[in-house]
Amino acid sequence: MGDSQKAEENVGFLASDLQAIAEVIGTYFLIFTGCGSVAVNKIYGSVTFPGICVVWGLIVMVMIYSVGHISGAHFNPAVTITFAIFRHFPRKQVPIYIVAQLLGSVLASGSLYLIFDVKDEAFFGTIPVGTNVQSFVLEIIISFLLMFVISGVATDNRSIGELAGIAIGMTILLNVLVAGPVSGASMNPARSLGPAIVMHQYKGLWVYIAGPIIGTILGGLAYNMIRFTDKPLREITKSGSFLKSFSRPP
Amino acid sequence: MGDSQKAEENVGFLASDLQAIAEVIGTYFLIFTGCGSVAVNKIYGSVTFPGICVVWGLIVMVMIYSVGHISGAHFNPAVTITFAIFRHFPRKQVPIYIVAQLLGSVLASGSLYLIFDVKDEAFFGTIPVGTNVQSFVLEIIISFLLMFVISGVATDNRSIGELAGIAIGMTILLNVLVAGPVSGASMNPARSLGPAIVMHQYKGLWVYIAGPIIGTILGGLAYNMIRFTDKPLREITKSGSFLKSFSRPP
Amino acid sequence: MGDSQKAEENVGFLASDLQAIAEVIGTYFLIFTGCGSVAVNKIYGSVTFPGICVVWGLIVMVMIYSVGHISGAHFNPAVTITFAIFRHFPRKQVPIYIVAQLLGSVLASGSLYLIFDVKDEAFFGTIPVGTNVQSFVLEIIISFLLMFVISGVATDNRSIGELAGIAIGMTILLNVLVAGPVSGASMNPARSLGPAIVMHQYKGLWVYIAGPIIGTILGGLAYNMIRFTDKPLREITKSGSFLKSFSRPP
Amino acid sequence: MGDSQKAEENVGFLASDLQAIAEVIGTYFLIFTGCGSVAVNKIYGSVTFPGICVVWGLIVMVMIYSVGHISGAHFNPAVTITFAIFRHFPRKQVPIYIVAQLLGSVLASGSLYLIFDVKDEAFFGTIPVGTNVQSFVLEIIISFLLMFVISGVATDNRSIGELAGIAIGMTILLNVLVAGPVSGASMNPARSLGPAIVMHQYKGLWVYIAGPIIGTILGGLAYNMIRFTDKPLREITKSGSFLKSFSRPP
Repeated sequence: MGDSQKAEENVGFLASDLQAIAEVIGTYFLIFTGCGSVAVNKIYGSVTFPGICVVWGLIVMVMIYSVGHISGAHFNPAVTITFAIFRHFPRKQVPIYIVAQLLGSVLASGSLYLIFDVKDEAFFGTIPVGTNVQSFVLEIIISFLLMFVISGVATDNRSIGELAGIAIGMTILLNVLVAGPVSGASMNPARSLGPAIVMHQYKGLWVYIAGPIIGTILGGLAYNMIRFTDKPLREITKSGSFLKSFSRPP
Repeated sequence: MGDSQKAEENVGFLASDLQAIAEVIGTYFLIFTGCGSVAVNKIYGSVTFPGICVVWGLIVMVMIYSVGHISGAHFNPAVTITFAIFRHFPRKQVPIYIVAQLLGSVLASGSLYLIFDVKDEAFFGTIPVGTNVQSFVLEIIISFLLMFVISGVATDNRSIGELAGIAIGMTILLNVLVAGPVSGASMNPARSLGPAIVMHQYKGLWVYIAGPIIGTILGGLAYNMIRFTDKPLREITKSGSFLKSFSRPP
Repeated sequence: MGDSQKAEENVGFLASDLQAIAEVIGTYFLIFTGCGSVAVNKIYGSVTFPGICVVWGLIVMVMIYSVGHISGAHFNPAVTITFAIFRHFPRKQVPIYIVAQLLGSVLASGSLYLIFDVKDEAFFGTIPVGTNVQSFVLEIIISFLLMFVISGVATDNRSIGELAGIAIGMTILLNVLVAGPVSGASMNPARSLGPAIVMHQYKGLWVYIAGPIIGTILGGLAYNMIRFTDKPLREITKSGSFLKSFSRPP
Repeated sequence: MGDSQKAEENVGFLASDLQAIAEVIGTYFLIFTGCGSVAVNKIYGSVTFPGICVVWGLIVMVMIYSVGHISGAHFNPAVTITFAIFRHFPRKQVPIYIVAQLLGSVLASGSLYLIFDVKDEAFFGTIPVGTNVQSFVLEIIISFLLMFVISGVATDNRSIGELAGIAIGMTILLNVLVAGPVSGASMNPARSLGPAIVMHQYKGLWVYIAGPIIGTILGGLAYNMIRFTDKPLREITKSGSFLKSFSRPP
């Protein structure tokens, strides 16, 4: 019995390590392909801005499907912090997740820098195009939307199952299409910090740390407000669910 | 027993409030991202027209997945009215839903106006490019198609389950691609009213109130006509269902 | 008993009528939006060629989800004929389906002609850009691919369920992207006949009648060849199925 | 009993043949449409680079759904080799699969050459745009990502079911968007060998044989590392699965 307990402890340790590695790999490919498409478009020109948006949306979607069952597929310190606040993620694991996400982002940014011989003009980080305040407000709103969707599709007991990966990826895609030309549409401190560190370009960086964290917390709050319910309500809303509200005359 | 009854009443009241809030938030993000992509494209230029269409389609899809199980995800007075007519939605809730949808649209239009310092040239509402009658006819046809698809995928007992969100979002996307350059492809009085109110631009507005309502009612009628059935037919059509009609030689 | 039999006959008649109406409506919107995007792009210019391809793919997908459970969602005489040949569709219903499909196509082409005041330059039918033979061969190959996919995803007992609508729509999308600039990527005699009749432009029309029919029959044949199996094989291929071949070391 | 055994042998032989034919047909259409879109874009110009990427992604997706249940839908010698190494595919079938894949690619390249009268300028194979080493590194990274996703979505016991086809196709799409302008984004020796053989253009061909094979093996290794587990861990990670980690406060 003592042996089995010890084995379980070891395995528990192992599981937490594997989750961190999954976050490193997932964030690495998020940044490598997303920022890579920005750099390639600046150097070669054929990706186009909508093409960049598609890359960001799809890499998040496929990485959710690839490692979501291992680490939860956060890839984003703002998401990890918000999950911890709303008790969907153990608080003691927050630091290791954030370190893993930053590590993945720095490694990917470094890889891109070496492979593409990136000049300053082809900087693939995020800098406000207009005022800092404009980008700050935009980052709060699009991060709010991202976390609201994540909460709606993935944390609710009445969830849509594995289509959640599509919904979250497509939210990224549309957010980048709308806010990309103005703020760069980061929604993710790790996405902005990696390129900033590798290319020593820290202009307006606070926007992409504070904005996403404030936005995701508010988005999580908003969803929790409208889902707030105890058992009797759940009974009621069952008949108010999307498909059922359509198929049954009340 | 009396207490429990009273509790249920309170909870029922609460549920209806939460549904209205879900419609406000859902319509807010529909308008903020959809109209936002129009404004950003007019100011910065890189979103492109197909990119705008993608935003409209995807935001409807992800919002259906996010709050569909709470409010039914209408976001559109024409859809709410049509559901009420065909008894898929309680008539007494129609006014509060329409108020919520208009509120969401006005708030989003105001946010965009403030954040982007929108000039008249970057108006993100809908104005007929050709004649009013041309846009009126187009709005009727594309709203017909939208409601026909909603009815087919979401109100039928033989429905496709949660893929309904994808089907409805992609109908929006294709409708905007086809009709966007001519009528603006509103399909939704709330989508046209919000920007019109905020920017005081009411030209041809009746097209986008009458057209969508007439179109969705006709679309709902058409689908109800071809699905009209009592039990014996359902038995027959079971063997005529999409996949089954393929996999079984009759 | 006699009454019930009579009722069943009536209902059977009704079901067949409803299927024909579903084919008219489905084909109408296929042609209205697909050809409409071609006309709008020629007149207004902003849809772009990839945008046109997206419209064709998505309208097929959403119409499969909307009326697939009613009529099987053919919208294409070549598909109807091929299903009848391989005994997935009753032969006596072939004529009414083809009439319904042609009717939908002519009505949609007429609507577009009236709404957009289409000139000859904005012809939305299909004409070979190069030689007739080149387009003929291309139409055979892409129609082969279309029918091969339909057979694989929708007629096989080991099918993927409702994702079939996505797979078939996306096959249309990619076929139009590849062959559109050369042959117009019809794959469907009804798609080419409607605009030809309405605008009296019959150049190379045989390409779009013979090509798709030959292609779909060959595609159906090819799939039937590789799925040909009796029970023992089915046992074997069960362990050779897509997901299972991955998850189990043999 | 002897008869039945003999029958099973025959049937087993047949199954393996059908799988090879499925790989020929699948790879044929992969190359015909993917490389076809490259050739058509060079000759006619309207497909655009993002359009080419969409074709590559969608054809892989629809072919997985069409023949995945027959052959496993590899279409790629690097994937076949990696599956064999990690014991997800019988080693003795590797040669016939590779021959089938090369045959499909050569036939498709020949078809394109004949149909489009392809000149050297419209070469649809892959040639490094920068240095060979740069493309070699890029091919390793994107093939790593491809195999990592395939492993995550299709070989894991905790897999996402039939959405795997969408995830794998979209990984191809995004990889081509990012790496296409630099290395051509082959990820597949058969994709590069077919056009090279037909058009006698062997420049830098080793990059597209060695790169994808090294990349897929490393990607398979990486996924196996983070999923490495025996029963007790599986119990633990069950509560760490994507949706569950969200819906349950730990």
